[in-house]
Amino acid sequence: MGSASGKARSRGYRAERELVATLWKLGFAVMRAPASGAKIKRADYPDVVAIYKGRVAVFEVKARSRAGTIYIDEGQVRKLLTFAERAGGRAYIAVRLPHIGWRIIPASALERVKGGRYRLRKDIIEVGEGIAGVLKDLGIVKSLTQYLKSS
Amino acid sequence: MGSASGKARSRGYRAERELVATLWKLGFAVMRAPASGAKIKRADYPDVVAIYKGRVAVFEVKARSRAGTIYIDEGQVRKLLTFAERAGGRAYIAVRLPHIGWRIIPASALERVKGGRYRLRKDIIEVGEGIAGVLKDLGIVKSLTQYLKSS
Repeated sequence: MGSASGKARSRGYRAERELVATLWKLGFAVMRAPASGAKIKRADYPDVVAIYKGRVAVFEVKARSRAGTIYIDEGQVRKLLTFAERAGGRAYIAVRLPHIGWRIIPASALERVKGGRYRLRKDIIEVGEGIAGVLKDLGIVKSLTQYLKSS
Repeated sequence: MGSASGKARSRGYRAERELVATLWKLGFAVMRAPASGAKIKRADYPDVVAIYKGRVAVFEVKARSRAGTIYIDEGQVRKLLTFAERAGGRAYIAVRLPHIGWRIIPASALERVKGGRYRLRKDIIEVGEGIAGVLKDLGIVKSLTQYLKSS
């Protein structure tokens, strides 16, 4: 989660555990990354990795106390994408907001901005799908449109 | 790694980090499980998960100071197999021995014994393959036999 206040960090961990539990209930094998610490280079891993019969989703988790544009360090994005590429999976930013819940945004929606950072715009987060969108994106659950087309 | 002395635990963590580094060099996306702790139910995860373009290997890591039969708790084995099944991957016991290095044994070689435990026999560990065997087992690298058959 990068550098953050104690409160933001505990909000982040709570969100990660919640995402892990939800994905597990949906049938995924799920693993959280080791916690940050002096000895562990946390940034080498995505926050959460979920696998369903060889289909892989990797997540950078961002828990926020209010809706708004999110900035992510370039290095963190690069590591997320590298992991996803090696795994043959898809990369997402999982945004947790009070009342609204989860918005799961494909990493391809990130825009590179000045200062070696990436931006995830508020309006994109707002139209993002919930966790079920990941199932559809990974081809695990067909969308209604696909269902109608194929029948 | 279950309950263990401080020395055995640090040997175990060192081995895990070594396995992660080696699998990463081979092209896998690799993640270690969060460290054990009061708040984290470590046993829910395999020690190491490695993914290569949708092919998944999950590992229980056992670092030993000498060769010998290894016993693993039933619960730990069950969780390893559950994770592998959900992920659509293969489960291994990764045994690290001094001088000899790694022996990677498919979990199917485990034998159930009395007292709610599984046993991995010394003679099976001795004939086990090294890390390269995982690549072959996952179909990433063809074995010489397969190569000759297909040509």
